[in-house]
Amino acid sequence: MAKNSALIDPRLPRGFVDFEPADLAAVEEMVAKIRHVYERYGFDPIQTPFFEYTETLGKFLPDTDRPNAGVFSVQDDDEQWMSLRYDLTAPLARYFAQNYQDLPKPFRSYRQGWVFRNEKPGPGRFRQFMQFDADTVGAGGPESDAEMCMMMADTMDALGLAGKYVVRVNNRKVLDGVMQAIGVTDEAQKLTVLRAIDKLDKFGPEGVRLLLGEGRKDESGDYTEGAKLNVDQADAIIEMMSAARLDDLVDLEAEAGPDGFLDAEFKTPALAKFKITQAFAEGFAELQSMATLFTSAGYGPDRIKIDPSVVRGLEYYTGPVFEIELTFKVQNEKGQDVVFGSVGGGGRYDGLVSRFRNEHTPATGFSIGVSRLASALKLTGNLNAAPVTGPVVVTVMEKDRIADYQTMVADLRTAGVRAELFLGSSKNMGKQMKYADKRNAPAVIIQGSDEREQGIVQIKDLAVGAEAAASITDNAAWKTERPGQYSVPRDEMVNFVKAIPAVAAWMKANG
Amino acid sequence: MAKNSALIDPRLPRGFVDFEPADLAAVEEMVAKIRHVYERYGFDPIQTPFFEYTETLGKFLPDTDRPNAGVFSVQDDDEQWMSLRYDLTAPLARYFAQNYQDLPKPFRSYRQGWVFRNEKPGPGRFRQFMQFDADTVGAGGPESDAEMCMMMADTMDALGLAGKYVVRVNNRKVLDGVMQAIGVTDEAQKLTVLRAIDKLDKFGPEGVRLLLGEGRKDESGDYTEGAKLNVDQADAIIEMMSAARLDDLVDLEAEAGPDGFLDAEFKTPALAKFKITQAFAEGFAELQSMATLFTSAGYGPDRIKIDPSVVRGLEYYTGPVFEIELTFKVQNEKGQDVVFGSVGGGGRYDGLVSRFRNEHTPATGFSIGVSRLASALKLTGNLNAAPVTGPVVVTVMEKDRIADYQTMVADLRTAGVRAELFLGSSKNMGKQMKYADKRNAPAVIIQGSDEREQGIVQIKDLAVGAEAAASITDNAAWKTERPGQYSVPRDEMVNFVKAIPAVAAWMKANG
Repeated sequence: MAKNSALIDPRLPRGFVDFEPADLAAVEEMVAKIRHVYERYGFDPIQTPFFEYTETLGKFLPDTDRPNAGVFSVQDDDEQWMSLRYDLTAPLARYFAQNYQDLPKPFRSYRQGWVFRNEKPGPGRFRQFMQFDADTVGAGGPESDAEMCMMMADTMDALGLAGKYVVRVNNRKVLDGVMQAIGVTDEAQKLTVLRAIDKLDKFGPEGVRLLLGEGRKDESGDYTEGAKLNVDQADAIIEMMSAARLDDLVDLEAEAGPDGFLDAEFKTPALAKFKITQAFAEGFAELQSMATLFTSAGYGPDRIKIDPSVVRGLEYYTGPVFEIELTFKVQNEKGQDVVFGSVGGGGRYDGLVSRFRNEHTPATGFSIGVSRLASALKLTGNLNAAPVTGPVVVTVMEKDRIADYQTMVADLRTAGVRAELFLGSSKNMGKQMKYADKRNAPAVIIQGSDEREQGIVQIKDLAVGAEAAASITDNAAWKTERPGQYSVPRDEMVNFVKAIPAVAAWMKANG
Repeated sequence: MAKNSALIDPRLPRGFVDFEPADLAAVEEMVAKIRHVYERYGFDPIQTPFFEYTETLGKFLPDTDRPNAGVFSVQDDDEQWMSLRYDLTAPLARYFAQNYQDLPKPFRSYRQGWVFRNEKPGPGRFRQFMQFDADTVGAGGPESDAEMCMMMADTMDALGLAGKYVVRVNNRKVLDGVMQAIGVTDEAQKLTVLRAIDKLDKFGPEGVRLLLGEGRKDESGDYTEGAKLNVDQADAIIEMMSAARLDDLVDLEAEAGPDGFLDAEFKTPALAKFKITQAFAEGFAELQSMATLFTSAGYGPDRIKIDPSVVRGLEYYTGPVFEIELTFKVQNEKGQDVVFGSVGGGGRYDGLVSRFRNEHTPATGFSIGVSRLASALKLTGNLNAAPVTGPVVVTVMEKDRIADYQTMVADLRTAGVRAELFLGSSKNMGKQMKYADKRNAPAVIIQGSDEREQGIVQIKDLAVGAEAAASITDNAAWKTERPGQYSVPRDEMVNFVKAIPAVAAWMKANG
């Protein structure tokens, strides 16, 4: 036992954390509310395993141009690479393709689970985190995208966030259409432009302008290569993403003509230098259909709004993209007021399933970041952060009477009371009381030799005791009154304990 | 879209599986019952992450003498190895040591989660599976081990398995004491003996005898090196593990003398050739204390029994070991009747925390194999395997009226009904009905142009329809009666749907 030097330091790899009882209870409560909304919308749960073949997952992570970054991979015994899933969408595409014959189509599913990113951890940035997704595979119409947005809004309402969020909606075809209009057609360059737009929240319009042009050096001196757009091109992009609404860019009454091109022109000066393209017209029409559905279902722009600056980082999106933004202010690490920001998002990914099946399979869905949403709910007071009610603790006063104390515990448990025997080696009363306090025990049972001879137990109601301790300052008065301490015949112990408010509340909540 | 050759085969790595809605609902129900027992016993949940540093986990897996076997490991960016947890006990030891100052002591926790084994998968043998553990760290007395056994028994009762299980209890000191008595002191040889005993269920006494002696060749021709015991030694081991009860070996009234040696001799012929050792006496005394507690708490040998053949594979156990065996018969792959066998077990591991802290920290706990237990409960009819109730499906009859249909869906959802719009591209009625059937929908809503003009909807109660279909064989009668199909004014739709029994049942169960 004395080989001190050989001791292992008890610590976790960076980017991983433990969860305590109160965290788990809070997340469980939150997840139950989310599930209830998803199930009411007709979605059923499935679960896929943590590992998939690496080629199954594909490479769709944002910023994975760094070598070996993004995912955790191991080689299977048949030499094939498998990876821990980095999201819940790529595994769903595999699942759908694999079980195509048996599944109802369209296929609605939700999935809650941990995902892994092999990235540099930072504040609020973990290498294992929980997502909660809902997806409809095999549905191509804008009504399925609109439904996703409405479900996101209903979920926020169910969590008590009414008035504190907005679901922002855009369409990748609108973004692609503008890039096409200004002459950006190279895939790599397009991706760099999208990534630049996606950084608007982080770096502001001036930062984005640098990323659209030559490049940007950050505070640490790291240089990010830009998209090399010329000034006219960059102006057009900035104009597009800065528009508060789509009809700032083009009149909403405009309709797509027979060739798909909009019978209209861009209204803003920088964009007006370019012609509207077919992709833009298609995306615009889809957004219009969605807007109609939002209006008719009573979701106003305070809850769901079209916003041309939304990109979403993942590369597999092909049409509508959406994002839940929490609009209340918090302070960032520098003490500045910023909006809390995104807690989830999604979009249409019509190409993901066709990596497995030689057939067009439209799909749409969204993902909520569970831990990030939980932090938000803690800030707004919508998450129960009360400590868990502990067990009634039966203390050990006479060491040779363990079997008797154990029987008291068994009697309490049989009656449905949360109860335990103190199992520590010290039978010191102070230590046992301290343990009960630390466990947030509602009550303590004591039976020493005196009580045993009288056939009674002492029951301490710790809540009453704590309240009294705050008001009684006179030591003598305390000893006479002994607030919250009761002598009760042994055979009335169970009924007495069941009537203690904190015990009764636990029993009610735990059936 | 025509690049067929580039398609990826949608499949999972071996040893990993997907879970469907009915599986998940069944496991959730089971887990809720287990949690309720654990919480009533005073245990609180914690969750540790999937990765730990490899040195934190240590090497305690059974049969990991193969190189690189057992765990999935990756190298962190600082070159340190981390591994996916292979059980929930090693991470608990790290957690306890890391949070020592803040935790109540003894520390009771339960943990439910996935663990990973990098092993050859086989029937019922997965590389990702779920365990559900409870542990008390910082409690050294036999009352804490006894409590674990009683909680295991209560858990089986709560799951409806009363009369179909037995918790078998032994003590590693008894095993060690017998090995010491017969002169086996080499650590590697001791381990080989323990592994041989652990194979009793699998290979029978004759197979174990081979593994205790020279070695054993299995049916595939693979040869397992034996423990090289001589005949007297092997006889003693076989005798010990074949004893139905501890007092077949030594009189239970026997007491440990002042030097810890039992004031008695082995009663059976092969063992009688050797002397009882101190380790045996200690283990025997601990088992006696536990037996006393079982008796006084009313747990008879039909629920918990002392059994000298229990080993448990993991190497970190230091005292009592226990195992839940399901005693009902099932057929194995060869069609033979065998008992279902172990669904979990555990024991005392006093050395695990002291790998991190230079201090004696006793601990005891057990683990349930969730998937294996779920299979057992399916066999006994104790697990709800009913298909999940689907949503009410609002069909699309007129493509330009999506917003109207979506409003119907929204009305139903607002009233708490599980409902959805049919989102498929085909608006063919037959396909929509087939979809509703496949989703196990309780009802379908139809509004074509006729119904729209009359301000009504058609509601089909699919359960009534299915029942009638079984009894009505006359096609003409069917068309006149239209069983389960009702014309209802649009503004009475929601109340009518809520009264359909399957809808009402879902709403009741989902609050």
